[in-house]
Amino acid sequence: MPRIDLNADLGEGFGRWELGDDRALLSVVTSANVACGFHAGDPTVLRRTTADAAERGVAVGAHVGYRDLAGFGRRFVDAAPAELTDDVLYQLGALSAFTRLAGERIRYVKPHGALYNAIVHHEEQAVAVVTAVKEFDPGLPVLGLPGSRFLEAAEKAGLRTYREAFADRAYTPEATLLPRREPGALLHDPQAVAERCLRIARGEPIEAVDGTEILVGADSLCVHGDSPGAVRIARAVAERLHSEGITVTPFTRVDT
Amino acid sequence: MPRIDLNADLGEGFGRWELGDDRALLSVVTSANVACGFHAGDPTVLRRTTADAAERGVAVGAHVGYRDLAGFGRRFVDAAPAELTDDVLYQLGALSAFTRLAGERIRYVKPHGALYNAIVHHEEQAVAVVTAVKEFDPGLPVLGLPGSRFLEAAEKAGLRTYREAFADRAYTPEATLLPRREPGALLHDPQAVAERCLRIARGEPIEAVDGTEILVGADSLCVHGDSPGAVRIARAVAERLHSEGITVTPFTRVDT
Amino acid sequence: MPRIDLNADLGEGFGRWELGDDRALLSVVTSANVACGFHAGDPTVLRRTTADAAERGVAVGAHVGYRDLAGFGRRFVDAAPAELTDDVLYQLGALSAFTRLAGERIRYVKPHGALYNAIVHHEEQAVAVVTAVKEFDPGLPVLGLPGSRFLEAAEKAGLRTYREAFADRAYTPEATLLPRREPGALLHDPQAVAERCLRIARGEPIEAVDGTEILVGADSLCVHGDSPGAVRIARAVAERLHSEGITVTPFTRVDT
Amino acid sequence: MPRIDLNADLGEGFGRWELGDDRALLSVVTSANVACGFHAGDPTVLRRTTADAAERGVAVGAHVGYRDLAGFGRRFVDAAPAELTDDVLYQLGALSAFTRLAGERIRYVKPHGALYNAIVHHEEQAVAVVTAVKEFDPGLPVLGLPGSRFLEAAEKAGLRTYREAFADRAYTPEATLLPRREPGALLHDPQAVAERCLRIARGEPIEAVDGTEILVGADSLCVHGDSPGAVRIARAVAERLHSEGITVTPFTRVDT
Repeated sequence: MPRIDLNADLGEGFGRWELGDDRALLSVVTSANVACGFHAGDPTVLRRTTADAAERGVAVGAHVGYRDLAGFGRRFVDAAPAELTDDVLYQLGALSAFTRLAGERIRYVKPHGALYNAIVHHEEQAVAVVTAVKEFDPGLPVLGLPGSRFLEAAEKAGLRTYREAFADRAYTPEATLLPRREPGALLHDPQAVAERCLRIARGEPIEAVDGTEILVGADSLCVHGDSPGAVRIARAVAERLHSEGITVTPFTRVDT
Repeated sequence: MPRIDLNADLGEGFGRWELGDDRALLSVVTSANVACGFHAGDPTVLRRTTADAAERGVAVGAHVGYRDLAGFGRRFVDAAPAELTDDVLYQLGALSAFTRLAGERIRYVKPHGALYNAIVHHEEQAVAVVTAVKEFDPGLPVLGLPGSRFLEAAEKAGLRTYREAFADRAYTPEATLLPRREPGALLHDPQAVAERCLRIARGEPIEAVDGTEILVGADSLCVHGDSPGAVRIARAVAERLHSEGITVTPFTRVDT
Repeated sequence: MPRIDLNADLGEGFGRWELGDDRALLSVVTSANVACGFHAGDPTVLRRTTADAAERGVAVGAHVGYRDLAGFGRRFVDAAPAELTDDVLYQLGALSAFTRLAGERIRYVKPHGALYNAIVHHEEQAVAVVTAVKEFDPGLPVLGLPGSRFLEAAEKAGLRTYREAFADRAYTPEATLLPRREPGALLHDPQAVAERCLRIARGEPIEAVDGTEILVGADSLCVHGDSPGAVRIARAVAERLHSEGITVTPFTRVDT
Repeated sequence: MPRIDLNADLGEGFGRWELGDDRALLSVVTSANVACGFHAGDPTVLRRTTADAAERGVAVGAHVGYRDLAGFGRRFVDAAPAELTDDVLYQLGALSAFTRLAGERIRYVKPHGALYNAIVHHEEQAVAVVTAVKEFDPGLPVLGLPGSRFLEAAEKAGLRTYREAFADRAYTPEATLLPRREPGALLHDPQAVAERCLRIARGEPIEAVDGTEILVGADSLCVHGDSPGAVRIARAVAERLHSEGITVTPFTRVDT
């Protein structure tokens, strides 16, 4: 019986500034990547987001990022590996105070933004993040891009790894993401996105940008891009999956 | 058999900037108030300081402060109580990642700088800090000024409370600290400081600034002011106490 | 011939976070209080906001605040006066790089948030801000609350001072602002707000919260509160003033 | 008659944290690269450092860096060019408030740390910094590494450019700096450093790390590395140059 997880970035406000419609997304997704304060997310945001997620049975993941509020964690920072390990540990510890308060715990780790992108290829930083996760809790799984150095390093370190696909992004024939700046990189039609998510959930091939068919294995679908239509797309995906009998459930819930 | 604890502020560097001689102080004190990143202490400093403390059997306390790197946590910030509670929780969580990594845990909480001073009188902020400690771990004790709203609120909340005295500060006849800006507020002679610490440890009265005798009950002596002579004074105090047969041991070690 | 200025807070985004509808407000107001980076406003926001304001002939004021991004400058910070003077100078210098680039210059200084409120009464911080303005440019006027220590200190220092009134706030019989938390403190009806602004602009008395009539002298009307209806209210005020023949023009334009 | 400038990094404290012996260095160097607050240097440090420099006739340069206090500006940040331009403008404006207060002005711009290194090769960031300098003041010269993209872009933009050499660093046979991590990359003997500085000042070749002779043209010698011996080396260099009849004077003083 096919199952899949839907994840989205949450808790991205900071102080007076709000971002995204967390409440709406929490009613749709099954896993929440919660910012930990280094690129977004002040302590009060962390508290509210983890409490809201726990209340709805949404799994909380630590969305760890570079220390860069001004850049929202979207700029590569050439942090030394040991420093990066400590920065990730700090963020995991901070978030865990709030998940515990909510009667929950951090269920997985997903790097954010430029860090996510960097450790697709950057071996040292990939290992640095993996080291932090393992030092924090060797039983804590990670979520990342299939084929990335990050997932490779995590497996090698004995961590459980989960693969994600991006609901609203075009893929190359090699099953990698088409860069955002390329024409057609972002899919905007909720129904088309939902259709492709259904295929991924069923293990069926999807169409790459050149029309060839590719297989994109995924344990979780990231439904939250930056687009204003994010919530609408997320809902369309969830509804389609439900109506087709796919179980939408946290990828970290292993005991189905 | 008399016993006392010696505590000092540690881990107060940040990035390129160093402050204080942590290694030297760790060889003298029995409790380390470790900065948690909001007023000082980057993640790498937290890791090193907690590891060093654990290695030497020094108890680690969370030295939580206002979010104010530029002011080193020494300026009152009129944070809303709920916000302050979350800020303290965040810091406790962050530090706990490193104490756990060091095979240890946070042994107590001592507010830093302007927060410490504010909650001597500021009821709402005192309660806010207490709430954070209790939410984080109701078994976690706090260290503070006798007679402060902070210790009162902590007791009322059911937390274990410990009293500290300041080794190198003059006291008023009412057993409160003479403000730093007053003449004679800081004691500089290591032997005089050591002598007074001995009296406090023995439960004997000390001399207030006007010559009257006062009783300053204390579970811990804070030996680290800002003065360059801090390490020398700390050593003098420790040696004197040892030579007089006082057991110098963490106040949090209840099972002697 | 009666004239008045309309001012609003602008440039309050930071990095990925946006706040308020700057474009819409710039089409209504004649003076823009532009955040300078300490409580909001990254350099790119400063550039865009000053350029947009200059293009529309809106006078740019420096909206200087405490260094507190997490608190949006809305929490009192007990900064030492000398420090505060330097913080304000730094912000003035930073903003001036962008006004100059836009072919303009800083036309006035209006403190932001908690700093604005503090220096209604806090003599030392009031003088500290005045000192900074005078050191930066003794010809630079300030905008503030009538009767505040800030305006008093500014006058004493020889700075030109301008008084502002708040379009959507209720006043006490003593012509001070009713605290926000009091019932009825905020006016929501655009037409009522516009009517009262018209009276202020004409030098006529308005009604205080208890029904008595008071005189609120003002060179500028602050039309931007936090409310979502800010733009709508600002438009109603501007239209009413225009239709009644009041000249709406920057208070800093002395040579009409 | 030969002349040369000696420059060093100053104003690198922040809040409670101090770094380097600014007073001692100011008595030796003729140009001071003053941190502008993004990687180091709070407003009070800027005020004091520019005042001290002005008092001693030391030329003040803006030491602009990435926004990265935790990394001290020593980590590459992949800032978008337009953003970087604005960040540099902001820093120039901020510093200029203090140079003006000191009766002086910014005499040159020298990028700091990772930004300095990045724009040796990084075309877009090099142009971004040059754009900021030109927008701020097209008459403002820049100081950089000979052969760098930065100096090339600056020349192309019509800025005056000055070349610096590093007193205590080993050079490759291609006249580039031997990376710090290579053995022998740092020279520690004050007399050897002074001798090589004398040769550079006279336009004579120096010895590269492999023993070959190379020509290192320089308008300014950077005498401040991180080493604790920085002041001693700077003094040795200055004394040697003076005793050999070299005029040590700001490179920006073109009208000798």
